[in-house]
Amino acid sequence: MTHIVNEVRSGTYYDSVVLMQLQKSILALKGVLDVGVMMGTEANRDVLEQSGLLTEDSKYAAAEDLIIAIKAESAEKGKDALDSVDMIMSQRQSSQTSQDFRPRSLITAVRSLPDARWVLISVPGRYAVDVALEALDLGKNVFLYSDNVSLDDEILIKKSSLEKGLLVMGPDCGTAVINGVGFGFANVTKIGPVGVVAASGTGLQALIVSLDGLGSGVSHAFGTGGRDLKDKVGGITSKQALSLLAGDNDTQVIVLTSKPLASEVAIDLIRFINTLNKPVVVNFLGFVPLVTRIGNVFFAKTLHEASDLAVKLSSNLDSITMNTPVSNKEFAPSQRYVRCLFSGGTLAYETLLVLNTFAEGVYSNIAINSDYKLHDASVSKEHTVIDMGEDEYTLGRLHPMMDYDLRLRRLRQESEDEETAVILLDVVLGHGSHPNPSAELAPMISDVKSAALSEGRYLEIVVLVIGTENDPQELSVQIESLRRAGAHVETCTDKAASYVGNIIMGLSPYLINIKSLEGSDIDQVTQVSSIINVGLEYFHESLIQQGVQSTHVDWQPPAQGNEKLMDILAKMKS
Amino acid sequence: MTHIVNEVRSGTYYDSVVLMQLQKSILALKGVLDVGVMMGTEANRDVLEQSGLLTEDSKYAAAEDLIIAIKAESAEKGKDALDSVDMIMSQRQSSQTSQDFRPRSLITAVRSLPDARWVLISVPGRYAVDVALEALDLGKNVFLYSDNVSLDDEILIKKSSLEKGLLVMGPDCGTAVINGVGFGFANVTKIGPVGVVAASGTGLQALIVSLDGLGSGVSHAFGTGGRDLKDKVGGITSKQALSLLAGDNDTQVIVLTSKPLASEVAIDLIRFINTLNKPVVVNFLGFVPLVTRIGNVFFAKTLHEASDLAVKLSSNLDSITMNTPVSNKEFAPSQRYVRCLFSGGTLAYETLLVLNTFAEGVYSNIAINSDYKLHDASVSKEHTVIDMGEDEYTLGRLHPMMDYDLRLRRLRQESEDEETAVILLDVVLGHGSHPNPSAELAPMISDVKSAALSEGRYLEIVVLVIGTENDPQELSVQIESLRRAGAHVETCTDKAASYVGNIIMGLSPYLINIKSLEGSDIDQVTQVSSIINVGLEYFHESLIQQGVQSTHVDWQPPAQGNEKLMDILAKMKS
Repeated sequence: MTHIVNEVRSGTYYDSVVLMQLQKSILALKGVLDVGVMMGTEANRDVLEQSGLLTEDSKYAAAEDLIIAIKAESAEKGKDALDSVDMIMSQRQSSQTSQDFRPRSLITAVRSLPDARWVLISVPGRYAVDVALEALDLGKNVFLYSDNVSLDDEILIKKSSLEKGLLVMGPDCGTAVINGVGFGFANVTKIGPVGVVAASGTGLQALIVSLDGLGSGVSHAFGTGGRDLKDKVGGITSKQALSLLAGDNDTQVIVLTSKPLASEVAIDLIRFINTLNKPVVVNFLGFVPLVTRIGNVFFAKTLHEASDLAVKLSSNLDSITMNTPVSNKEFAPSQRYVRCLFSGGTLAYETLLVLNTFAEGVYSNIAINSDYKLHDASVSKEHTVIDMGEDEYTLGRLHPMMDYDLRLRRLRQESEDEETAVILLDVVLGHGSHPNPSAELAPMISDVKSAALSEGRYLEIVVLVIGTENDPQELSVQIESLRRAGAHVETCTDKAASYVGNIIMGLSPYLINIKSLEGSDIDQVTQVSSIINVGLEYFHESLIQQGVQSTHVDWQPPAQGNEKLMDILAKMKS
Repeated sequence: MTHIVNEVRSGTYYDSVVLMQLQKSILALKGVLDVGVMMGTEANRDVLEQSGLLTEDSKYAAAEDLIIAIKAESAEKGKDALDSVDMIMSQRQSSQTSQDFRPRSLITAVRSLPDARWVLISVPGRYAVDVALEALDLGKNVFLYSDNVSLDDEILIKKSSLEKGLLVMGPDCGTAVINGVGFGFANVTKIGPVGVVAASGTGLQALIVSLDGLGSGVSHAFGTGGRDLKDKVGGITSKQALSLLAGDNDTQVIVLTSKPLASEVAIDLIRFINTLNKPVVVNFLGFVPLVTRIGNVFFAKTLHEASDLAVKLSSNLDSITMNTPVSNKEFAPSQRYVRCLFSGGTLAYETLLVLNTFAEGVYSNIAINSDYKLHDASVSKEHTVIDMGEDEYTLGRLHPMMDYDLRLRRLRQESEDEETAVILLDVVLGHGSHPNPSAELAPMISDVKSAALSEGRYLEIVVLVIGTENDPQELSVQIESLRRAGAHVETCTDKAASYVGNIIMGLSPYLINIKSLEGSDIDQVTQVSSIINVGLEYFHESLIQQGVQSTHVDWQPPAQGNEKLMDILAKMKS
């Protein structure tokens, strides 16, 4: 008959490596069948219950309590195992040999290893903020492995790092590779021309492994923590790391990856990257633009595609023409928006989807995102895409592919708006459509373009023509007539939309709100020959294995993790 | 001083071509500056107001009233123009010459042209349902151009067509090309090997134009109406058209396109297409899977990419291996689901996104769609992806990349669930990670696989290994050990997820709920030498131009469109 015993210990802090090793040691004891050694969080108690290891004693354990749960062959064996716990713990203490001098505080460690530019922090989340802020105050960059840190604390830490010209990777940053040295979890890859910035730990690892597998290699790979690209944090670390790699001579191509993020954050990053002068492959999970490229940003759907593309780009650097931004000197300062007047719904949708990668909000009567639904489709708002083939426009009148009257009226209306920079229209040829669209459209285009010019504005009119040479209207005849009227003509929707997207992106001013790391700042980031470790000793050992001079701080939480004592201490301080 | 005059006419139906021509004729009169001739819908009144053409007289016009709005140089010229309206209308009547015999009803037209297999209907939406149902009752296929038809009426019409083995394109179907004959709006393209099915009018046109531009051509292109792929309609027309093209010898590759649709509809279509035996390029706007292909479905992001891919496939038909569905004979009937136990969040997300293209609902503790959020992450539900590196799992314990205990417990738990067919785990190597994962994992894999086998179940265990040969754990050593334990090993996330996706798709039975058109049904659909047209005379003229024997029905709405009279007639009927 098997027997379950539990013991709950309160008020003491244990390193989680110690707990794992304790669990394994108990399991190795005679007569022990299963063991769980865990802090008493709800998730952990669930696990123990699922495994049939939880007794009544532990059901109300607190998150800061340690539960030792043992399933044994008999009550006696269970009791014996529990009695062995302290002995096992003391044996472990005495077997530690890796470091002669063990500073007990960060400041002592810094004094003993003054050249260290980095502090690796992996203490439990609730203690991590104080340690990180202390490291920044001491002028060190921070790799913050700890998770369970609040978003507000993350912002606090990152703003502090920005002020000091330092870099903070994390919180919840699992991995980084700088100058070939792995921080936290890190694969051993070849050194090479590709730099990585990842708001995702295993994303970074999958990327560098894939780059290595493709025969390429990594210059530096920065983790940022999974929340760096949440809109409140604003991508502080990502932008610092991107500008750092853009200025790094060993990096030819950069890959940026992230877990799913808000599209305004994605667009902000695309615009930020367009201020840098290096090709950047972007893989934001779940964000798949219809265009393959915007300026120096190249989009990839998957991690594997991203690494593949980066390698291809790095071996064809000379053939990559950096898109020159469309000149906008002809536009007046008031001109900022595009107005699209479609007769074809699908062409309107495809354009809307393409433009959504170039600009933050595109209003439409067919908006997919209800925040950008135009409630009064007769008046445009900022960037606007109107599908004039929608039912509301065709009640009791011909389809706009046959009858251009409504669109011509709207074209004039938009052309008179001082905020309009570009107007995009589609012209669909073929049987059933207007027998000669350019005969109506071309004079109007000339007219509104000159009218705008006489008022000091340059109006770009883009016409997307869908048709063939054998259509009754003849494609080339229509194109020729529209071009003569001053229109820019395209025959493919995504190309037309990209053309417009590049113009409106150029017309909207972009403010870089992150001071980039430069000169000596870069050098101090890439200096990794000596590093201070606070938290999991595991990571210290891994640094030693990699030939880094590492000092491990023998960190203990304030008041040995006793919550009540900590509260009293905090009150005494304030 | 310019002058605006308006006249409102009630109780008479006008063809919208007539109205457009009337507007143009009035504008050509001396002293007339601008004209709007429109039915009095709200949208149209807005347009007239924007153009400064609306007077108080018309502000309360009803949708079925005709507004004639004129801006003239003087009051007198305005009055003259209004007085000319009836004369212009009567002139138009007398100039019609295109057809000697004009049947006044559909049934008369059918008697005069019994071989016609198609009726083109473009009467106003509120009359369209009755005409369409009449055509179906007469055994004809229907091309329903009319919009402003309710969703319920669309379902009614399509269900009727299914029962009768006929095809209905539309409502709101702008275009189709069958055997080189364009219906509605249609471009003139080369005949060729690519068939098209489009729940989008200009989508279809852009596709066939692009195919033509690439030097290829079109076998048949079917429109379905933009709402055919709304979940309530269930893609009746799309599926009929797809199966028709799959059975058509002239069609080598099919392209299917649609405006944005619900993902469950997309998956249903992917599964439907996988019952056909021809390559199908799918472009659902805004639906961009991470995989490039599922079975015989090839995904394209844009219309242009879709046509490009179709042409490439059609010229390399021999080299396309149709994916053979994964054999599932070893699985027990209860086994249907995958359970993914990840240590890496990004790997979990990428897997989730890939699986979402193969299966309708994948539950997760990191679900992006809140409908599929697992509230109790300790119990899996149907297909489940668990990120065990989430904060909830790492409070007070080591990361699952270091400590496999939780995942091993969960692996056993999932393996004992009779519904589990596949378990996917990641193993991330490198510094900081578990020093030898396979030493813990491999024995567990052997163990749970044999346990399942002894209960008559086959358990597929897939392990995604992320690592390099130079990692401390050595990639090849880990892979070898996992393979020996019976695991299927992959090293790339999207490949691992696709592998799993194909298995679970094969394990979930798919019922085809649409009776496909076969044999004589196909012949009657592709027979387009004679066609009956009801509604816009424009389309009749276009058919004549294309050499089709077309009969135009001189259709008038019941009670000449007088709403009150129509109500009385309807009441007398019932």
